[in-house]
Amino acid sequence: MSPDFAGRRTAVRQALEQREVESVLVTNLINIRYLTGFTGSNAALLIYAGDTDADERTRICTDGRYVSQVATQVPDLQAIISRACAEELIERASTNEVGAATSGVRTLGFESHVATVEQFRGWEKLVSGGPELVSTPRIVEPLREVKDDFEVAQLRAACACADAALAALLAAGGLRPGRSEKQVRRDLENLMLEYGANGIAFETIVATGANSAVPHHRPTDAVLAHGDFVKLDFGAQIGGYHSDMTRTYVLGAAADWQRDVYDLVARAQAAGRAALAPGAQVVDVDGAARQVIADAGHGDLFLHGLGHGVGLEIHEAPGIGQRGSGTLSDGAAVTVEPGVYFSGRGGVRIEDTLVVREDGPELLTLTDKELTLV
Amino acid sequence: MSPDFAGRRTAVRQALEQREVESVLVTNLINIRYLTGFTGSNAALLIYAGDTDADERTRICTDGRYVSQVATQVPDLQAIISRACAEELIERASTNEVGAATSGVRTLGFESHVATVEQFRGWEKLVSGGPELVSTPRIVEPLREVKDDFEVAQLRAACACADAALAALLAAGGLRPGRSEKQVRRDLENLMLEYGANGIAFETIVATGANSAVPHHRPTDAVLAHGDFVKLDFGAQIGGYHSDMTRTYVLGAAADWQRDVYDLVARAQAAGRAALAPGAQVVDVDGAARQVIADAGHGDLFLHGLGHGVGLEIHEAPGIGQRGSGTLSDGAAVTVEPGVYFSGRGGVRIEDTLVVREDGPELLTLTDKELTLV
Repeated sequence: MSPDFAGRRTAVRQALEQREVESVLVTNLINIRYLTGFTGSNAALLIYAGDTDADERTRICTDGRYVSQVATQVPDLQAIISRACAEELIERASTNEVGAATSGVRTLGFESHVATVEQFRGWEKLVSGGPELVSTPRIVEPLREVKDDFEVAQLRAACACADAALAALLAAGGLRPGRSEKQVRRDLENLMLEYGANGIAFETIVATGANSAVPHHRPTDAVLAHGDFVKLDFGAQIGGYHSDMTRTYVLGAAADWQRDVYDLVARAQAAGRAALAPGAQVVDVDGAARQVIADAGHGDLFLHGLGHGVGLEIHEAPGIGQRGSGTLSDGAAVTVEPGVYFSGRGGVRIEDTLVVREDGPELLTLTDKELTLV
Repeated sequence: MSPDFAGRRTAVRQALEQREVESVLVTNLINIRYLTGFTGSNAALLIYAGDTDADERTRICTDGRYVSQVATQVPDLQAIISRACAEELIERASTNEVGAATSGVRTLGFESHVATVEQFRGWEKLVSGGPELVSTPRIVEPLREVKDDFEVAQLRAACACADAALAALLAAGGLRPGRSEKQVRRDLENLMLEYGANGIAFETIVATGANSAVPHHRPTDAVLAHGDFVKLDFGAQIGGYHSDMTRTYVLGAAADWQRDVYDLVARAQAAGRAALAPGAQVVDVDGAARQVIADAGHGDLFLHGLGHGVGLEIHEAPGIGQRGSGTLSDGAAVTVEPGVYFSGRGGVRIEDTLVVREDGPELLTLTDKELTLV
């Protein structure tokens, strides 16, 4: 099983035809990876609406560092080597290097949610008298929102890797009083690499005691202590795809307030998961979890959105929050991660990665959700 | 010793006055970190030219996840909590919430090399009838180019950490035939964390045999073999500052061609280092190294620029390449990293991080440069 890059580019051409734009310059490197498999750090991609299925005129541009890499990763497209990738491809589009026509395209779409004002002003000078630059934001991202079987398999592998790493950490007694947040971080990350991760998905969060009340705490030399919360938010990256999971534990017996906040967050998380369905409004999914916490009088302590899409980026569409818009797609991969944070005291977050399905969400992060460690 | 955030903001105000702009919205998160110490993932910063030294009207905005973090990291500025940070501060600037004036600023600078076209178009609607949005690209980056004593100390620590990790790897026999690129990567990264790194500086490159001809090869299961090149390009991050070093070795005795290419790259690297001086044109620095390789008939195999600035970002100003512009500043931290790559066969790169000084560059990466391991 391998990604259908050509099929994805065909979908972009269809989107171009719907928008009545003749071509598009893709500069977002993640989108380029999605459409071609290229993973270098400098590239641009030019796709023409007219190429109904073949990629005869599609061009990828990268610089000299990636000559052999682009040939290996993108054997099916003609590559151009230049440092100024976007500008090089804009010139190609303007002059229509391929085919009988002597003039270039009339309209060239660009990713206006990616291109900077400065880049755009340079491009405007470049196309003076040539094609019109047309804003085509998020022409690729909606395609990425729905994961195909290949992508779900990668996500499943990444989540399984994180599950295995956490299980191994716990089995080895890695979460015991006296160990530091940094030590736990290192163990978790090493275990993920040992279990096949190509890298970690994002900066691992290990937060103990009062630090657990900081949603995005970075690991310090603070040590785990008996009776304290310890919150782990981490993920593995496999084949470019990211897992994302948070678990919160108490070391030893839980105090009543810890048990109460944990149960509350667990109920909110279950409500959020249950609300995942194709066609569901993202604000309603967020609301389903948020209402549980608000009903308990702690709405002001849930400091962030409920979740986010996950795939080639750790945070991608759809955003699931109070101010989100749109609905969930069948096949979207998302996180559900409510949290309640008592500043100076401690906090709880519980997070899973799931795939939205007609017959109920598929849970990818399988680690159980017990508050106390046996 | 701690960073002089207030002094850095004063320098921004001076730059604003030179450009005759009344205020600036900073949205680049690295620039915000440089100016305030804030390390969260969502923020904007508003600075008024008029505040000659106090930061009375300076505002930092971040979202609810970072309420306690911003209070801890930026105790000297008033923080505003909002998800849409840039828009919130643009409204503040438009209405001049502080002081006797009832109207806002007339001109609001923004980082046009950072803001996307889509963001900018939204902001234009927001300020309709209010302040003029003025493009002020790179108003902070030139300040960042010259490292102060605090920053050099951080860079020195990061480079020493990488040096120590490599020494430990070699001492433990970590570079021996049969080990995989991925194993070496893990060892190097773990050792850097053990020696005090807050994180790794960038994705570690371990490339053996023919893989060493790929400038930015990612570690695979390929195993190190007797007589092969192995190229290591890695760095540590400490306090947000990055080190960057490349060493290339041969396992066992070097063949003549390996010795030749290594000596060539070593001479080019020495020439590049020797060319580092305050006021030197970056193209001349690149040229000093490139000429050595061209004279040997391999100019076409040096596939990238000579180096780059390094600091809060692993790649920052100044770029040192054939198409670079400008000169080196006294106190700039840069890499010097020529390479020669024989596709399908093997390649060599040698890289150091240095600080440009009047009395000659200060070398921060101290690992020696022997081709063969004893």
